[in-house]
Amino acid sequence: MDGNGEPEQERSPLGVDNSAAEGDGDRGRYSTLMRCASQSSLDESSQRAAAAAAVAAGGGVHSTAHAAALLSTLAGLRRDGTLADVRLQATAAAEAEAAGGVWAHRAVLAAASPYFLAMFTQFDERTRPVVTIQNVEPEALEAIIEYIYMPESLVITEDNVQALLSAASLLQVAGVRAAACGFLAAALAPDNALGIRAFADLHACRQLALAAARYVHDHFVEVLETEEFLALSADVLAQLLDSDRITVPNEEVVLDAVVRWMQLKIKTIQ
Amino acid sequence: MDGNGEPEQERSPLGVDNSAAEGDGDRGRYSTLMRCASQSSLDESSQRAAAAAAVAAGGGVHSTAHAAALLSTLAGLRRDGTLADVRLQATAAAEAEAAGGVWAHRAVLAAASPYFLAMFTQFDERTRPVVTIQNVEPEALEAIIEYIYMPESLVITEDNVQALLSAASLLQVAGVRAAACGFLAAALAPDNALGIRAFADLHACRQLALAAARYVHDHFVEVLETEEFLALSADVLAQLLDSDRITVPNEEVVLDAVVRWMQLKIKTIQ
Repeated sequence: MDGNGEPEQERSPLGVDNSAAEGDGDRGRYSTLMRCASQSSLDESSQRAAAAAAVAAGGGVHSTAHAAALLSTLAGLRRDGTLADVRLQATAAAEAEAAGGVWAHRAVLAAASPYFLAMFTQFDERTRPVVTIQNVEPEALEAIIEYIYMPESLVITEDNVQALLSAASLLQVAGVRAAACGFLAAALAPDNALGIRAFADLHACRQLALAAARYVHDHFVEVLETEEFLALSADVLAQLLDSDRITVPNEEVVLDAVVRWMQLKIKTIQ
Repeated sequence: MDGNGEPEQERSPLGVDNSAAEGDGDRGRYSTLMRCASQSSLDESSQRAAAAAAVAAGGGVHSTAHAAALLSTLAGLRRDGTLADVRLQATAAAEAEAAGGVWAHRAVLAAASPYFLAMFTQFDERTRPVVTIQNVEPEALEAIIEYIYMPESLVITEDNVQALLSAASLLQVAGVRAAACGFLAAALAPDNALGIRAFADLHACRQLALAAARYVHDHFVEVLETEEFLALSADVLAQLLDSDRITVPNEEVVLDAVVRWMQLKIKTIQ
């Protein structure tokens, strides 16, 4: 039966003009036959109507499979450069020369990111075949474009998570931002929590910033022992000590840590 | 926590240059902090590595959701004509003038159909902003383009199933072909089975043709009573009677039907 959603085999790849011509010639005849069916049987048999409804009901699953298959084919087209209409280049710093670049389809990028949508519809870049993006690591740009076409390709490591989060924030690719934030949230430890919190604040990752702040409060004694604590600016230190959510067994450990912080600062100034 | 896969809220729609500049300025500092984390805690704590792996493990579900969301946004862009780079027109017959037409993105069509891929990469149409497709009903073309961007939009009825199957066969959109074949398979009845079988043969829908043939064999006595049977060509009739899969209580009903068929043919010739 054909109702199982499997695509029919196509006999002739592009020899379709012939079959269309045949179809056209015989159209009158089959139209009559079908109209016949519609009047005399389809309308009457509720059993068959139910079967037809069952065919339609598979639509939800079919929709997501369709979208996944289409995007996967688009990824293949991009890999081959087929119908790709923009080349993106990244420079990590404003002065550096842009590297080779990565091809893509404007429409796909625009659908994946408000940043690209604006770029390709409102700004000068909309007509340029090559677009250079400043302040983005080339590897991060490539990984994000890859992600747009094939999200399962995204590999976040301790080495690339910062560059990815920065680039994804700039390029407004929410999925990569969320994945990078998730990675950092899972990696929270006493000796990185203050850094992650600051980084999350910088990129407006609200949930990650909250998670990191909570972590710092809950593990305050351990955090006091870290290099990150000693490297804090006076402003941030004051703000941290001011919080009434800090969990400590006694005030002494905090005082000791602040003394250590001050000693280091004095040494640095000297 | 951010590990739940929800995208982080973006504070500034396109005010990203500022945050990128900030990120750049502070990059050195956070790089150090993170490297610290990487050496002293991430590599050591298997517990935290497991948590990070758990974040990555959600990838399968995320991939299909990503593809569905991206395609849905592309559908919106198409509706607004944003970044659409081709207009397709259909004419039901070769002579007729093409109707208004429907906008789309070449890359998306090419990803959904080998026919469009060939059209936009190998034939003259690859550079034309407006492409006219012969022998396709405008409504069927529009429904198929809609389907490519939003498969759940496809509504198959007794009135459009033939035009859809013809057009989907020409345009090589397997999903619409399969859905139309599924609809016809579910609608098989004594008075349409012969017509559906012929239509399936015409469009090389192998599974549907087999299902229709099986239906005809299993309901042969009822099929003999239909208008479709009387309208058969001599060739097809001979082929049908020759089959040894036919189920009949006795040969007489078949003989009676053939006599009726001959009487009608003689009347038609006179």
